[in-house]
Amino acid sequence: MTPYSCKSRGELEKEYQAVLSQYDACKAMGLKLNMARGKPSKQQLDSVSGLLTVLQTPEDCFEDGIDCRNYGELAGLPSARAYWADILGCKPEETFVGGSSSLNFMFDVVSRAYTHGLLNSPRAWCREERVKFLCPSPGYDRHFRLAGFMGAELIAVPMTPTGPDMDMVEELVKDPQVKGIWCVPKYSNPDGIIYSDETIHRLAALNAAAPDFILMWDNAYCVHEFEGEYVPFPDIISLCAEAGHPDMVFEFASTSKITFAGAGISVLASSKANIDYFTGILAVQMISYDKLNQLRHVRFLKDKEHTIALMKEHGKIMAPKFHAVFDALEREIRPLGFAHWNQPKGGYFVSLNTMPGTARRALYLCKQAGVTMTPAGATYPNGLDPLDSNIRIAPSFPPVEELVQAMDVFCTCLKLAALEQLLGK
Amino acid sequence: MTPYSCKSRGELEKEYQAVLSQYDACKAMGLKLNMARGKPSKQQLDSVSGLLTVLQTPEDCFEDGIDCRNYGELAGLPSARAYWADILGCKPEETFVGGSSSLNFMFDVVSRAYTHGLLNSPRAWCREERVKFLCPSPGYDRHFRLAGFMGAELIAVPMTPTGPDMDMVEELVKDPQVKGIWCVPKYSNPDGIIYSDETIHRLAALNAAAPDFILMWDNAYCVHEFEGEYVPFPDIISLCAEAGHPDMVFEFASTSKITFAGAGISVLASSKANIDYFTGILAVQMISYDKLNQLRHVRFLKDKEHTIALMKEHGKIMAPKFHAVFDALEREIRPLGFAHWNQPKGGYFVSLNTMPGTARRALYLCKQAGVTMTPAGATYPNGLDPLDSNIRIAPSFPPVEELVQAMDVFCTCLKLAALEQLLGK
Repeated sequence: MTPYSCKSRGELEKEYQAVLSQYDACKAMGLKLNMARGKPSKQQLDSVSGLLTVLQTPEDCFEDGIDCRNYGELAGLPSARAYWADILGCKPEETFVGGSSSLNFMFDVVSRAYTHGLLNSPRAWCREERVKFLCPSPGYDRHFRLAGFMGAELIAVPMTPTGPDMDMVEELVKDPQVKGIWCVPKYSNPDGIIYSDETIHRLAALNAAAPDFILMWDNAYCVHEFEGEYVPFPDIISLCAEAGHPDMVFEFASTSKITFAGAGISVLASSKANIDYFTGILAVQMISYDKLNQLRHVRFLKDKEHTIALMKEHGKIMAPKFHAVFDALEREIRPLGFAHWNQPKGGYFVSLNTMPGTARRALYLCKQAGVTMTPAGATYPNGLDPLDSNIRIAPSFPPVEELVQAMDVFCTCLKLAALEQLLGK
Repeated sequence: MTPYSCKSRGELEKEYQAVLSQYDACKAMGLKLNMARGKPSKQQLDSVSGLLTVLQTPEDCFEDGIDCRNYGELAGLPSARAYWADILGCKPEETFVGGSSSLNFMFDVVSRAYTHGLLNSPRAWCREERVKFLCPSPGYDRHFRLAGFMGAELIAVPMTPTGPDMDMVEELVKDPQVKGIWCVPKYSNPDGIIYSDETIHRLAALNAAAPDFILMWDNAYCVHEFEGEYVPFPDIISLCAEAGHPDMVFEFASTSKITFAGAGISVLASSKANIDYFTGILAVQMISYDKLNQLRHVRFLKDKEHTIALMKEHGKIMAPKFHAVFDALEREIRPLGFAHWNQPKGGYFVSLNTMPGTARRALYLCKQAGVTMTPAGATYPNGLDPLDSNIRIAPSFPPVEELVQAMDVFCTCLKLAALEQLLGK
């Protein structure tokens, strides 16, 4: 196969006709496939069924003398706090264990910053003339939407193979209106990048003009290798403390992609001062979170070592799916030279950059052929990818045979959209 | 026994000495008893253990074709919405079923009114010069704290035996700064009053000056009789619609006092327009709530009829506790004539009004003798009972024998505080 860039117009026309008839054949199959969201597969969910039966009797519901069926322990069951401290490498008193959603914790932090201010805020953010949030892009659409919903101006910062472009970040935080940055430090959504040690240290050392600047540290994929050995990560909370900014970071994680999606447990981790401040604030909205589900998780997942062993089993389910994606791209797209993508060893996504100006068109074509993907642009602030190039592929949910079909359609659509553009159709 | 008001100073002095030595005897017992919070008892929690085992296998986790272990169905599992519609007498599409906390839903409504405004708000409440909330008092401390935390001015409205003083409410809502009222329509916290039909109809028909005035309708004790038959209640959502204010009411309930406290499921019910509006807003903070716990509850509680049967069993546990309180008050305090209290047949509290100016002192004396009660004043806005008279008794948690001991101390402290005041000590 010759790269499209080396083909003559006549060759491209011929290729276009061939791809168009492939596409028509795809459409005729009447598929209904979905690669839009990072959802665990049925097989993965089945593999943690032990969680359903770990609490069977009233006696099972007691831990550390606490009856988990009753109110109390707003900041979480002590054993659940110890579990997350073990996973994240911080101290139990630096954790607050909540309900099923870490996104909700992120919302709590940002929305309370707006209405009441954070520990070191001179005033509530709603009293600021303007609030800006740095959005390493491509990134997670829900992060950007959350900050935008609260009224922040979203500033895209390019991602590099080692994390956000730190030269740019260091420059931007000199603006006192810049109040925060979204980070997914391990297997970033969607690129699957692990921030380098240097990037992490520079983030912890950020000398922001705003005294209440925050690192929104979404460690969503902290133990989510699907290939190779577990990759350790530094404790961002002690790094920020060592750099003299103990209250600058809020770290988030959950078991949504370890046990049951939307029915797991989540954690907010930060300096003890921040945890104390937020415990006081969260007491207004909650009496206590679901400690039974916390206890189920602690008993089932046990500790970091046991969790990593479980994630190895998940990895065996996930790896073939990612490889179905990689293989199709390698075979169908690589030789044509118009797109590039990452090949992460963990996380939930493959991030692909196709020919600029064709991502939306390609996904529209996919949809017409029954394959739903995350909308193009979703990985950029306000849903606008300036190059219209980035596409997030989420291979976790469908069975491999469906993925193979979906990738076949997807590659056809990528080609067709690229050819349309090259030929000015 | 003679009422204190009929005793001579000399008789009061003698009584004081006698009560003082009783009090010293109480203190000497070194008790550690708690009647501070409306928590279910161990016996009650044990009686719903079936909830722990209702989901055992992956197959159990499917309902209406939905895998409850995965993301989706933000507004709640259809069967959980149908369950709450059955309990509340509204339509499933008028419900949004969430996590474990109805208080959190109340917070979501009020805080989003502040940051973004409600469906009929001319502007976000944070842009209003002032926001006022009507607080029927005595009432629930957490309601008042929530509105106060967001910045509302709290206006106390007296409770009558039929609910809030409606003449006053109708007058106050002519002020466009008055944006809402807290209501616990059945077995109000703490009085245990069931709002009369007339009160409920007048509330539904309220002609508030603020276009975004809201009834915060906390139906926390909707099926919580501990004595006698289930008392039906009207559907406030259709009443408001019939009165021409379909979006005026937000109703809340949870299973925290039906199954497990803090580990149950909660519901927000309102007009379909409000549910749609909030589904859009909540999508920013949540992917989906814990549907496994929703499914556990639906399978275990089944429907309204089955739930009421379960609550009859709870009633058998609760009734003797309430009667221990009533009996002690009847025997020790009634003849002395300085206090009065309600005798509800449902809910979680007994509300007592002691001699004005002595409630705080009485509870201080209790605490010194090892008996913890809800702080005096907690039932009024900003924790300030202008008469220093109201005390909330929460008999649900301790075993009867502990309650008898605690009530003995409590009655002694009520008497001692009253005598101190009468004698100017």
